[in-house]
Amino acid sequence: MLYLYSLIFNLMMNLQCRLMHRPVGTPQSSDFSFTEEALPTPKAGEILLKTHYISLDPAMRGWMNDAKSYLPPVGLGEVMRAGTISEVIASENPQFAVGEFVFGSEGVQAYSLSAGKGLMKVSPALASLPTYLGTLGITGLTAYFGLLRIGAPKAGETLVVSGAAGAVGMVVGQLGKIMGCRVVGIAGDKEKCDYVVNELGFDACINYKVEKVGKALRTHCPSGIDIYFDNVGGEILDTVLTQINKFARIPLCGAISQYNATGDIHAPKNYLSLLVNRAKLEGFIVLDYVQDYGKAIQEMATWLAEGKLKTREQVISGGIRAFLPTLLMLFEGKNTGKLVLEV
Amino acid sequence: MLYLYSLIFNLMMNLQCRLMHRPVGTPQSSDFSFTEEALPTPKAGEILLKTHYISLDPAMRGWMNDAKSYLPPVGLGEVMRAGTISEVIASENPQFAVGEFVFGSEGVQAYSLSAGKGLMKVSPALASLPTYLGTLGITGLTAYFGLLRIGAPKAGETLVVSGAAGAVGMVVGQLGKIMGCRVVGIAGDKEKCDYVVNELGFDACINYKVEKVGKALRTHCPSGIDIYFDNVGGEILDTVLTQINKFARIPLCGAISQYNATGDIHAPKNYLSLLVNRAKLEGFIVLDYVQDYGKAIQEMATWLAEGKLKTREQVISGGIRAFLPTLLMLFEGKNTGKLVLEV
Repeated sequence: MLYLYSLIFNLMMNLQCRLMHRPVGTPQSSDFSFTEEALPTPKAGEILLKTHYISLDPAMRGWMNDAKSYLPPVGLGEVMRAGTISEVIASENPQFAVGEFVFGSEGVQAYSLSAGKGLMKVSPALASLPTYLGTLGITGLTAYFGLLRIGAPKAGETLVVSGAAGAVGMVVGQLGKIMGCRVVGIAGDKEKCDYVVNELGFDACINYKVEKVGKALRTHCPSGIDIYFDNVGGEILDTVLTQINKFARIPLCGAISQYNATGDIHAPKNYLSLLVNRAKLEGFIVLDYVQDYGKAIQEMATWLAEGKLKTREQVISGGIRAFLPTLLMLFEGKNTGKLVLEV
Repeated sequence: MLYLYSLIFNLMMNLQCRLMHRPVGTPQSSDFSFTEEALPTPKAGEILLKTHYISLDPAMRGWMNDAKSYLPPVGLGEVMRAGTISEVIASENPQFAVGEFVFGSEGVQAYSLSAGKGLMKVSPALASLPTYLGTLGITGLTAYFGLLRIGAPKAGETLVVSGAAGAVGMVVGQLGKIMGCRVVGIAGDKEKCDYVVNELGFDACINYKVEKVGKALRTHCPSGIDIYFDNVGGEILDTVLTQINKFARIPLCGAISQYNATGDIHAPKNYLSLLVNRAKLEGFIVLDYVQDYGKAIQEMATWLAEGKLKTREQVISGGIRAFLPTLLMLFEGKNTGKLVLEV
């Protein structure tokens, strides 16, 4: 078998997107390079994977910075880190069979070699493969643990979620409805707002580009805000802080409005509202809940099957070389649902 | 008896400090006026109180603003709100005897009439009366609940406390030592730093006026910061945020550096450190723990008696008319320990 692999795979080339410079502000194409190399041959215990789908996430911007964070920065010259759905195309590891699909963090490349560590098998029969990068993957789990563990919603409470039509936000809002909350989204265009209200069942959605967010929140949250799931940071966080209730919870998931800032970020000048309202602003990272992923995915898969939870993926069929322009769609607010690159 | 009261008390005058304007920035003497009026006569169920000590607290600055908060603002023309230790000098209420001392919120005035609601008897035999405004009063309770409930210290962790020599900070640091933490204070002069290290047993104290706080924290907190008890806000909060550990807790007690700001306050531009470190910034108000005051005071009184906890009050013998200049000592960093005005 090993001989056959070598024969075939040595003729195939892997295409990789590598981080070459640390971006200043918005990442530029000159910050990346593309390399081609012959496919490696799996040794005992290893498998060769063909990437089908690559996850695009706001967090990637942070991984490009040379800063202390929850994961080390991507090294210069390294393949850009990314969540992936891959197919096993050769296996010298008895735990993986050729033809199986796995979720992993194999990066922005067409093929990868793995010893199997950190891979999770996924079934294309139960859900479409891109869903395993979204609602049944890291973004769905982020919504699940951030809302349920940090937000701790109670029936009758009011939940506001920004980035409402994004991969995390759309799940947060639907989970809020399942928990019996009033759910108000904030998004950047009419189509997104219509989508979360009409398709996903949010109670209201504010288009922050045309509405005054403070005034609209007062209209749609007549009993104040008990939970604000923050995906965006910036002015919107500051505005929400003026309308939180006593004992409010703000799960801090991201701050996409600030990730490309070159100077100081927009800091929450109304943070003392946390004091007078005995409220909390709490960061979380989905990786801390890895021991509970299985149970959470099972629960969400059930809700999906029952129609209580809907999912949407926006799949861009551009291949590895389309990585950067596809990533930038996130920062330009051009995606609805989970943004995925098809290789 | 009623006749006798009237006869005596009608000859005595009450002196009151009233809020007349909402201060802009630092409160001015023109924001207050002093009024004199005849003492009222207690009716059935009422008691007449003579104020002995008035508590001076940073929170008073917030009460002067016309803003939604955890207590309604002091109304214009009303006696300025303040915590007090008073003596019962006439009683038509069987629950209070003449000569007893009570803690209450009787305001900046020499005498007050009360129906007894919200008063707590205190014993001058067990502790000096000003201690009931400090370590065995609201500031001690603030330290106790903020540190133990929000900060949740574990032995071996590193606790940083700002306003270290203030009424709250000095108790926070000592409670941290009792809980087995490494305790690093931040204060504004050498005397205060010497006091908390040499007298109270803090492991170190940073004089923020002469040392670079970031560098000094790196020296004194070699294992990072697990709990930051924030009394001051501003630049120091921002600096601490860059050195917090995973799962750090920041009980948000106050922001004295910002209370007199006339423009935007110094917002924590490093707040995203909460995200990558899964840390929380959580406000609290001591009034929420009123059902547990008794147990907490008993525990702290025991530590005081055992010498595990030390207390200090700075008593200014100025009377009612000295209210404002004494209050301003807090904002000028001129007090060590609990600042109290003697009437």
